[in-house]
Order: sequence, then structure tokens, then C-alpha cells
Amino acid sequence: MRTISIGKLRGLQQLANGHGILTMCALDHRGSLKRMLADGTGKEIGNQEMVDFKLDLSQILAPRASAILLDPVYGAGQAIAAGVLPKITGLLVSIEKSGYSGSSGSRITELLPNWNVRKIKKMGATAVKLLLYYRPDLDDVSEKQLELVGKLALDCENEDIPLVVEPVSYSLGSREDRPQDFACVKPQLVIRTAEQITAFPIDVLKAEFPADLKYETDENRLFDLCRQLNVASQVPWVILSAGVNFDMFYREVEIACRSGASGFLAGRALWQEATDIRSRHDRKIFLETTVLERLDSLTELANKYATPWYKKLSPSKVDETWYQHY
Amino acid sequence: MRTISIGKLRGLQQLANGHGILTMCALDHRGSLKRMLADGTGKEIGNQEMVDFKLDLSQILAPRASAILLDPVYGAGQAIAAGVLPKITGLLVSIEKSGYSGSSGSRITELLPNWNVRKIKKMGATAVKLLLYYRPDLDDVSEKQLELVGKLALDCENEDIPLVVEPVSYSLGSREDRPQDFACVKPQLVIRTAEQITAFPIDVLKAEFPADLKYETDENRLFDLCRQLNVASQVPWVILSAGVNFDMFYREVEIACRSGASGFLAGRALWQEATDIRSRHDRKIFLETTVLERLDSLTELANKYATPWYKKLSPSKVDETWYQHY
Repeated sequence: MRTISIGKLRGLQQLANGHGILTMCALDHRGSLKRMLADGTGKEIGNQEMVDFKLDLSQILAPRASAILLDPVYGAGQAIAAGVLPKITGLLVSIEKSGYSGSSGSRITELLPNWNVRKIKKMGATAVKLLLYYRPDLDDVSEKQLELVGKLALDCENEDIPLVVEPVSYSLGSREDRPQDFACVKPQLVIRTAEQITAFPIDVLKAEFPADLKYETDENRLFDLCRQLNVASQVPWVILSAGVNFDMFYREVEIACRSGASGFLAGRALWQEATDIRSRHDRKIFLETTVLERLDSLTELANKYATPWYKKLSPSKVDETWYQHY
Repeated sequence: MRTISIGKLRGLQQLANGHGILTMCALDHRGSLKRMLADGTGKEIGNQEMVDFKLDLSQILAPRASAILLDPVYGAGQAIAAGVLPKITGLLVSIEKSGYSGSSGSRITELLPNWNVRKIKKMGATAVKLLLYYRPDLDDVSEKQLELVGKLALDCENEDIPLVVEPVSYSLGSREDRPQDFACVKPQLVIRTAEQITAFPIDVLKAEFPADLKYETDENRLFDLCRQLNVASQVPWVILSAGVNFDMFYREVEIACRSGASGFLAGRALWQEATDIRSRHDRKIFLETTVLERLDSLTELANKYATPWYKKLSPSKVDETWYQHY
């Protein structure tokens, strides 16, 4: 079992709930959220609209989540300044730039300019989150992407803050263009990715579900794939929602947590319909009812089935001289 | 009103309870605790005994305190590694060496070697605490002591972590030797000290009660002194207990909180009798009953009368470019 240092340990304790389970909400969307908010109206979405949406989500969801994930542009600083982030709730902050460079079949993650691990630690956040487009079968691109993981892992070690990595697979086009075709390759992509990414000293893997429930209906196979993912990941892992609908995500969380996952980091599956509600008042009501119910039901599921993060990471030894060589 | 940066703001939110009140426990004693534990037995107190005492206190008090203060030698790292520090509880860590250098009438605070603000931030603590022997009327010594405050304030600004300063007055001997004589000078010492220390960009003042209740019995005067202290302190302030008995501390907390204090940072007044209990089992029972009752009654008092910390500090502005120049 991997050993983790004191700062990362306190960070993981603050990301999880009292049972060691990660019941987290992702609210760090930028480009995709602007598109969702603009959908149908054709208008430009202003900064204040983005901030308001994130503040509403934070205020309502944060008290019931073990941690929330926000971006530094519209969310993280604003949530602290507005006082809507309870002290019991952990704060993950994203480090990457929205989108990617390179081509759609060869995606390179870039870091947000003028932003870094040191600043994330400095602002009092609990963890650093990196979204990483990743194809384990593209040697040149994956090498470059892994270099970035290695660099950030080192930065996080220096600041002693947990690093959460979210590798996201993508279709290479042609042979994988149709969803049912991509669904065939996805399981092995997700599992091999977990293996390669967690070989680095990262602390939590935010994993895609290793199958597409629309095309894979054999439940035994779904459990088997999640168990393979669990073996592949050398660190605690959580399931991301990637915009699937809530009912499907609920199934994914159950299967993943019964196979060794430590919880979830749920984004659009929780709150995506809120982007269609124009009135801020009505939107808040939707968040306070439907969205909170969703979060609570996922939390119940995770508390029942998930594996506490500390089953995969153990604290380093502390004696009365530890602080001297820390 | 002073403005504070995002990291310090999150830190203060994590030190306080949900009402903005600071209901904190001090468990960072080193030399004095060794003496208390050895009292009467004449034996040497080992490291493990110190650690066990602090772990028991932390485990029992931390879930009910808004924050706890631990030292880096026997407490802070050990409490995190043992998992006894709930995520909702803030963690202050002391930076000074136990005791002082110079003479007893001219005390100089030294920092713990191989320990610094950067390490305190790195380990995931919420705030830095400095104990500072201080006499505003000793020009040479106070200049040196203020230099240290200035240096640490700068370090804390760089790491964006709150700095809590605890100035402690002391008798100069001869004319002040008798407690009743020192009681005469104490009010002005405490008030002038608050003025001088909070002229620096520190974040919370941990103040002595500005009178000795044994010799000052005029309640109006006690309130008046606390109100003077409140005016003198440019930052939120809390009352320290300095080993007075619990009933006296309870009165001090009430008067201070009704005069503008933001709560308390209670040490020996809460738990000092626990050092006389030899059996660890019996000691835990005492902590779980008497000591928790004391903490709860102080908390109730503070929640009723104290001034939330954010009445004296306001958040800095955050727009969508804040992270670039942070």
C-alpha cells in the first residue's frame, strides 16, 4: 500500500466524509457550461451569469457534498469570498485550461496561464484537479500527457496537497466514429489508462465508467470491468458523470462502488437540467429539490457500498522529530 | 476595516464555527505540560506520554471545538496521522520554541528550529500561532519582539495563511513581584500591547484578560477595560485562559465576549486537572464529562455574546481575473 505524507493525508480527510467516502460535486465547467447556458438563445453568456450559476450551485450543494470542485476563473475564489463554502466541505480546484490544443484526434491538455499548484495551495484549497485527455494507445501524445502528470505530481508533492487526475478518453474518428463502435474500445481504454496514470504518485483517480451502459447490458460484464479498473488503479478512485443522465449515473455509481470505487465526483448528471431554467429563482428551487435529492441518493449508495479511501493509502510515520525533516 | 486575501479568508472561516465565532482549544503546551504531568512523581515524562495526552485531548475535544491548537513536536502531525482531527475542526500550529531566551525580566521569543510558516501551511494547517512574551514598556526588547511579528506577518502573507499572535505579559520583578502589584499594571500592559501588535498585518489577537479578577472586583471597570481592549485591537480577538481556574475563566469569557471579543482559545482552564489523573482510562472519562461540559458552556456563552470575526475583517474583491495576479 502506498504511503502518503501529512499534508496530503489531511487533504484526503477533508475531501472525504466521516466514513472515508468521497461524495463530491463537480462545478468547474467553463466552455461547456457557457454553451449549455446559451443553448437556444444564441446570446453571449457574461461572466456574472457564470459566477451566479456557480454560486447558486455551490451554496446549495456544498453543504451536502464531502467536497466540491470549482474552477479558478468563475468559481473557487468567488465561493470563498461570498462565504458559501462551509468549512466542512473540501475544495478541489482545477488547474487545466478549458478545452485542449492539438487536433480532436490528438488532444493535448494545457494548464491555465498564470495559475499553478502553489496558488491552489495558497488559496486554502484541499486538492488540485487535472483533466487530462488521454489515449493509452497513442504513444507520442500519451507520452506528452504523462510528462504533465509527472510534473504536477512533483509540484503537488512539494506543496503536500493531493492531486486528483481525471483522464478522459476520446474517439479517434473513422473506425470509432459511431458511439457503438467507441463503446467497444472504451473498457480497455479506461482500464489501461488507470494503470498508466496511477503509476505516477497521484492521490485520487477520477475515472470514467469503463463501459457505455447504452451498449453494454450484461451486468456481470459491467461488474467485471469495474473490478478490473479497481485492480488497475493503485490509488483510490471515484466515478465521474460525464453528462450521462442521472438514472444511468446512479447505476454506474452502484456498480463502481460495489467493485472498489471510493465514491463519485458528479457533475452534469446532477445538475445539467438547471442550465435550461432561465429564472434564477426557479433554478434555485430545482437545485434545492431534484438536485439535492439526487446528491443524497448517490451519497446513500456510496456510503453503503464504496471502499474508504484509506484502504488504498496509509499515513506516513510521525515521531517527535518529524517536523524537522518535513 | 481591514481587507483580507482569499487564503486567509478560507482559513478564518475554518477556524470559526458557522456563526463566525471562535470556540477554540489550546493543546500546544510542551514544557509546562511536562511539568504538570510529572508533578509530585519526580519522574521523567517520555515523548509517548506527551503524545498520548495530546491525542486523548484532541480526540475528545476537537469534534466540539471550532479549531484546536497543537504543537508540531508532540501533537499536530500525530493528530492528523491518527485521524483524530475531524475535517470540520480547524488546526492552528505553534511556531515558537517552548520557553524564552534572555532573562526572566527581558524575554525574547525564539522560533522552533527547523520549523517555519511554509511547513505549517504545507502540512495542511489552518493558521500559524505565535506566543510572544511582551512588555510594551521595554523599548529594546519590544522592538526585537515586534521585528519577529513583522517577519512572520510577511511569511504568512506569502503563504496566505492566518497569523494568530498571543502576546503574554510578565512581571519585571521588584515593584511588580507581588500578584496584587502586577495586577495594577496589567490592564494597561494588555491594552497597549494589543495596540502595538495589531498595528502589524496579523489576523487574530489571542489576548490576556486585561485585569486580574482576584484583585479587580468592580464589574463596571472590567467591562470598561475589555471595551478599551476591543478598541485597541484592529483585528478580531479571543481570550486566552492562562491557567486560571474554570469558573474565573468563564467570567472572563462572558465579560470579554460582551465587550467585542470573537470568542476564546481555552487551554489549561479547560483541562488542567486531567494532568493529575494517572489512569488513562479515568482521564478519558474526566475529559468526556467535566471537560466537554466546560467547553460546551463556554461555546454557548460565546455564541450568545461574541462578535463574529468578519465584523473586523472584510474579504478582498474577486473578479474573473483575480487568479492571474494572485
